[in-house]
Amino acid sequence: MSKRPLNVGLVGGGRGAFIVHPHQRAINMDGTRRVTAGALFPDPKIALEEAANWAYPIRGYGSYDEMIAANASLPDEEKLDYILIVTPNHVHFDPAMKALKAGIPVFCEKPLCLNLKEANALVKEVRKRNIPFGVAHTYLGHWTTRLSRFIVRSGLIGEVRWVDSYYLQGWLATKLEATGQQQASWRVDPKRAGVSGCGGDIGTHALMHLRYVTGLEVTHVSAQLETFVEGRPLDDHFTVYCRLNNGGKALVRASQICIGHKNDLGILIAGTKGTVEWRQEEPEKLVVYLNGQPDRVYWRGAVTPGDGFLPKDMPADLLAEVTIPSGHPEGFHDAFARLHRCFEADVRAWKEGKPFQCDGSKYANVEDGWMGIAFLETCVKSSKNKGAWTAMPKKI
Amino acid sequence: MSKRPLNVGLVGGGRGAFIVHPHQRAINMDGTRRVTAGALFPDPKIALEEAANWAYPIRGYGSYDEMIAANASLPDEEKLDYILIVTPNHVHFDPAMKALKAGIPVFCEKPLCLNLKEANALVKEVRKRNIPFGVAHTYLGHWTTRLSRFIVRSGLIGEVRWVDSYYLQGWLATKLEATGQQQASWRVDPKRAGVSGCGGDIGTHALMHLRYVTGLEVTHVSAQLETFVEGRPLDDHFTVYCRLNNGGKALVRASQICIGHKNDLGILIAGTKGTVEWRQEEPEKLVVYLNGQPDRVYWRGAVTPGDGFLPKDMPADLLAEVTIPSGHPEGFHDAFARLHRCFEADVRAWKEGKPFQCDGSKYANVEDGWMGIAFLETCVKSSKNKGAWTAMPKKI
Amino acid sequence: MSKRPLNVGLVGGGRGAFIVHPHQRAINMDGTRRVTAGALFPDPKIALEEAANWAYPIRGYGSYDEMIAANASLPDEEKLDYILIVTPNHVHFDPAMKALKAGIPVFCEKPLCLNLKEANALVKEVRKRNIPFGVAHTYLGHWTTRLSRFIVRSGLIGEVRWVDSYYLQGWLATKLEATGQQQASWRVDPKRAGVSGCGGDIGTHALMHLRYVTGLEVTHVSAQLETFVEGRPLDDHFTVYCRLNNGGKALVRASQICIGHKNDLGILIAGTKGTVEWRQEEPEKLVVYLNGQPDRVYWRGAVTPGDGFLPKDMPADLLAEVTIPSGHPEGFHDAFARLHRCFEADVRAWKEGKPFQCDGSKYANVEDGWMGIAFLETCVKSSKNKGAWTAMPKKI
Amino acid sequence: MSKRPLNVGLVGGGRGAFIVHPHQRAINMDGTRRVTAGALFPDPKIALEEAANWAYPIRGYGSYDEMIAANASLPDEEKLDYILIVTPNHVHFDPAMKALKAGIPVFCEKPLCLNLKEANALVKEVRKRNIPFGVAHTYLGHWTTRLSRFIVRSGLIGEVRWVDSYYLQGWLATKLEATGQQQASWRVDPKRAGVSGCGGDIGTHALMHLRYVTGLEVTHVSAQLETFVEGRPLDDHFTVYCRLNNGGKALVRASQICIGHKNDLGILIAGTKGTVEWRQEEPEKLVVYLNGQPDRVYWRGAVTPGDGFLPKDMPADLLAEVTIPSGHPEGFHDAFARLHRCFEADVRAWKEGKPFQCDGSKYANVEDGWMGIAFLETCVKSSKNKGAWTAMPKKI
Repeated sequence: MSKRPLNVGLVGGGRGAFIVHPHQRAINMDGTRRVTAGALFPDPKIALEEAANWAYPIRGYGSYDEMIAANASLPDEEKLDYILIVTPNHVHFDPAMKALKAGIPVFCEKPLCLNLKEANALVKEVRKRNIPFGVAHTYLGHWTTRLSRFIVRSGLIGEVRWVDSYYLQGWLATKLEATGQQQASWRVDPKRAGVSGCGGDIGTHALMHLRYVTGLEVTHVSAQLETFVEGRPLDDHFTVYCRLNNGGKALVRASQICIGHKNDLGILIAGTKGTVEWRQEEPEKLVVYLNGQPDRVYWRGAVTPGDGFLPKDMPADLLAEVTIPSGHPEGFHDAFARLHRCFEADVRAWKEGKPFQCDGSKYANVEDGWMGIAFLETCVKSSKNKGAWTAMPKKI
Repeated sequence: MSKRPLNVGLVGGGRGAFIVHPHQRAINMDGTRRVTAGALFPDPKIALEEAANWAYPIRGYGSYDEMIAANASLPDEEKLDYILIVTPNHVHFDPAMKALKAGIPVFCEKPLCLNLKEANALVKEVRKRNIPFGVAHTYLGHWTTRLSRFIVRSGLIGEVRWVDSYYLQGWLATKLEATGQQQASWRVDPKRAGVSGCGGDIGTHALMHLRYVTGLEVTHVSAQLETFVEGRPLDDHFTVYCRLNNGGKALVRASQICIGHKNDLGILIAGTKGTVEWRQEEPEKLVVYLNGQPDRVYWRGAVTPGDGFLPKDMPADLLAEVTIPSGHPEGFHDAFARLHRCFEADVRAWKEGKPFQCDGSKYANVEDGWMGIAFLETCVKSSKNKGAWTAMPKKI
Repeated sequence: MSKRPLNVGLVGGGRGAFIVHPHQRAINMDGTRRVTAGALFPDPKIALEEAANWAYPIRGYGSYDEMIAANASLPDEEKLDYILIVTPNHVHFDPAMKALKAGIPVFCEKPLCLNLKEANALVKEVRKRNIPFGVAHTYLGHWTTRLSRFIVRSGLIGEVRWVDSYYLQGWLATKLEATGQQQASWRVDPKRAGVSGCGGDIGTHALMHLRYVTGLEVTHVSAQLETFVEGRPLDDHFTVYCRLNNGGKALVRASQICIGHKNDLGILIAGTKGTVEWRQEEPEKLVVYLNGQPDRVYWRGAVTPGDGFLPKDMPADLLAEVTIPSGHPEGFHDAFARLHRCFEADVRAWKEGKPFQCDGSKYANVEDGWMGIAFLETCVKSSKNKGAWTAMPKKI
Repeated sequence: MSKRPLNVGLVGGGRGAFIVHPHQRAINMDGTRRVTAGALFPDPKIALEEAANWAYPIRGYGSYDEMIAANASLPDEEKLDYILIVTPNHVHFDPAMKALKAGIPVFCEKPLCLNLKEANALVKEVRKRNIPFGVAHTYLGHWTTRLSRFIVRSGLIGEVRWVDSYYLQGWLATKLEATGQQQASWRVDPKRAGVSGCGGDIGTHALMHLRYVTGLEVTHVSAQLETFVEGRPLDDHFTVYCRLNNGGKALVRASQICIGHKNDLGILIAGTKGTVEWRQEEPEKLVVYLNGQPDRVYWRGAVTPGDGFLPKDMPADLLAEVTIPSGHPEGFHDAFARLHRCFEADVRAWKEGKPFQCDGSKYANVEDGWMGIAFLETCVKSSKNKGAWTAMPKKI
């Protein structure tokens, strides 16, 4: 029998917001989740106005404190099943922690928070309460990312020697923040963005992609953070040479000053037996290079187990995650939807008192978020020290 | 103030169905429309079971007759605002006509119906009632398709001389219908598919794309329909040389036997001053070729009016239709969503008694659907006559 | 022991010429052939001047008659081993015939000549004398073309159902001939170009590619020749629907008015088991599509026999024709060089009185040239008859 | 009047050699240069045998000492105009120095020699004698590389902020040298290759490309050299973070263990106003990204001065260097030929006692070669010091 859709409450997302829009499409897309409430703006008056003018009816709140407080007394049909945090980085920790304490699962934009102190607290709270917590590393949601994870972790390209994980953009090549553009302004402000600009905004995606696909961890970094646009207080270009815990090496790179690169996240994983490559701007395609073989171009939805490279017994849950047939392109919204779909499954299981995953295999969890913050802090330290090799903190 | 979402009722979409899924995601995605009811299967018992097990609660009906009949007595909150027809071709006409007669707007899968007689009746009914009616020519919903339409119709590449509009697939290269595969079975059956298999299933998309982008009409055809897979009663390969009403010429081509081509719809429009090219499998990109210029590659979301080719005063509604920034790929679901979004606008205007568009500029309308059927019938006639030049019927 | 390079004499190639340049680079490239003489221009005075100013010393003649006549009395070291004809189409037959009669092998630009009468005479003369004769269908010289021929003719993609062989250019989209541009002027003049402009200039390449790769012959055509640029006496756009002698069908298409298409020759061959695709502008790459397999991208120089698709026992001569390793791109000159290299082998064998190939397997021969002319004449006839199905003449 | 072709003598190039083959094709291609002599192998007997069996007659020598000694007494027609050195790295210095001392111009494979001591000596000798000397940085010879140099150095993309110059290969991902493969064996042997394997073999190309296109110099490096294949005495992966002399930064990267990357040299140059990108494996194409513009894809041979980005007054020598029209791909041999063509011009001028360029604008000169060696030594030092920032030596 059909069950009622999960109810999602927004923290942030009012005027000038960007990332709330793909999130809400991803939430609503399946019909099994819906946005039903929101604390959309820091100013309570504006927050309520924005809610009243939302494209469809939602319950508006003046603040997330109110929204969280009110939840307990709502009838079950209207109770929030999780909250989605889409505020600038400095407003991640507080609502996340309060929601957790109120027993509400949280899906939070990346980076997790501002610093390791906050990150430690969040990890502890999540563990204590054993409650679903997701971090919005969108690009894990592409089916081809799932496939690359399967291929690499199954050892199909041998031992990983080298990874180049990059995320290149060009939109901050000029001093956009000087025009008052909202998305630019907070990203270059240390108070709102944290210790790293480019690294925090997109470098963490590149790190997460490396970790998700390979299962490897960075142990030491030699980082070079650059600020190319004069007068900008944070880095807009970010290059990190990494040692991995299997003896391999990696580059984790990000840039916001490469004009013409729109949203160019990509990864190359070179193993002893083959190479896997993927680019987010062509997300339907995964290329595998093997010695003595033509380039093998795999398309989402056109993958056959037992094809001479892929094993016959591919995991059923991987194959089931394909939606539409190949040639009907999935995109950014679909990746986001896959994350929310998996988070929904965990929230439903948790509500029913059943075991749930939240283990980083389907979306980034709080420990993944912690690792992003640890990475940023270590990189900033190394970079201030002229790129000296610096060890990552001990895993929490 | 927010308004309640529009309610959509499904005709078809039960077990084994394919196209219902992208439709429902497209409907639900924005939060301003939702699927609330369905007559999901020909067998009433299965129809009700399927509805009861739908991923989220919907009102189930044993037949579309019941669903349409019941609608009048529902409270306004629950009344259907439009129905979506996602059945095989032979079950388009009847529910569409009945919904129209009941005063319910209709969004119908292509091709519109089985023959010109049905098509004539639908056009007349829609005109008589002045009610929104859409045909699901998905690929018009890509923003880049909108842009190509603007470029070509504005005369930016001069007069159109030649168009190559094609749609290549490979999934019917073997006799898939012999395995009982549901999607293959009805498409090769003249009773359910109509006079043309490949032409009807995908050739009409290629025709519609040509007409939508250029604004030109086909006046005469010389058609060659082929059946390459033995024992198949309908064409699986479709090639039509066309005269256009501006003196230009075109190929409208489709194939289901080109192994490796997943869903390869594309178009080349060669004008006296330049050429425009687009492929559905890379839907974010539009390429413009001009004499004395480098190839100009336009990306959805990265278009600047007054760039030396595009005029400064581009239409506001065109620019407003972009959703997420460039580099965050839109896909198939997004194209579908854009169609439903525009149809929603027309339905809302119509409900309020205001003028509405439904003029083919944002999605295909009933006259576009008629033209697809007229084209198929003319092509079949020409092909039976060894490709003799055959005139299209007079526009309704 | 090293042997002296073959000596090549040019017919045509003086001022304003284009195709002579890639030919001479291709001839000289290996060191085993060299251009040593030339009758470079119709006007004897200019011909001698041009020869005197050639980039390196060659023996100049006032006419090809002189060059051919003089040859017999030259010492062996200086005798011409073959002549290369790079004049406009109407000056192919006469020098070719005269060289043949003088016992000199001929490498001739395409199309072979102006009409079937000339073509018949050339075929007969070549057969009578059993002497090497080549036609410059450049694109057969790409290694990837060789590979595609092997794949298709070995039945690796099953029976051929459908071929789309196309050659799109845009350089004649405006009336370039009105500016006096030499390359444009003769190509649109029936006296110098023959019965077809676009078809003769590039359509014959598309036909030859189809025949070379598949081994199939066209039996009937339904042709549509268009002239889009006003006042041009010959076609500038050429579309032919073909029946093949195995029951398959094909499009042979060419255009000179598709702005932005530089030299876009390409082919798609759809068989019952797979599809092969190739484009001349990316000549290093051959894509093979098979059911249940990822797209297989083969690169010249990176092909491994016994890779799961290609058989273990690939022909040694095919593998030996690769020059530099993959990733070091071959181009247009390399394709031309491969043709001259193979023609050289035949000329050397012939000089030594040994059997030689000249069977169309390594470069187009006189029968291939004949077939091009037969095709053009049949297409012109069909097109004048509104595209009526017209049979090809009986093979000579 | 035509002049006799320049005579070129080979040092190296006998059995198992690779790079001699593209060189000789590039030398012979134009007809204005020809290979006429060779000391092809270290063992004099084999050297003479190989020469006797060369594909065309050349004068064979038992050693380069003999070849150089013999040259003075040859008649002018047969005198060597330059020698080409295509031996492993440890046999660059000696023949180069001896040829210089004999007054013979030298074209030498990269890297220039084994160490700075040798490099210093060569620079001094060349300067003293004022004689043409070229280093075979092939990829400077692509026309698109010339165009990128013009664009970047003209300031058309503003000030250079960031360069990513890379060269990725995969052929040494396994221990190929253990099989006795000749090309692999010497490249991993410090005695024959020098201080760096991957860096020396291909990293110097990446450095040279950066320097040629931008005109900038590396001032400091932080280098990480890796050896991924066990037991290999030299690096097979090479990553260098660089400070440039305009304040910009760069990555110079090379790898021989990225399976599937054939010969993947490429460059991204991000300036304050735009980005330029190029890849050697698609050498006909140069992409320029500008704010507010579509991606601009330039093709060799299809560039129009005054197109809205390129200035009207582009240098005549740049435009004149195009050979065949766009769409007729140039490749590796064409790039090599362009270098030899320009070197020929310098040698001819020098022979006539006229001023000659040899200034690095058309091919790499001895100072460029010196810089490659300086870079390698500095990188090795930095890498041994855990990537510590290390200054480049003072320019000679």
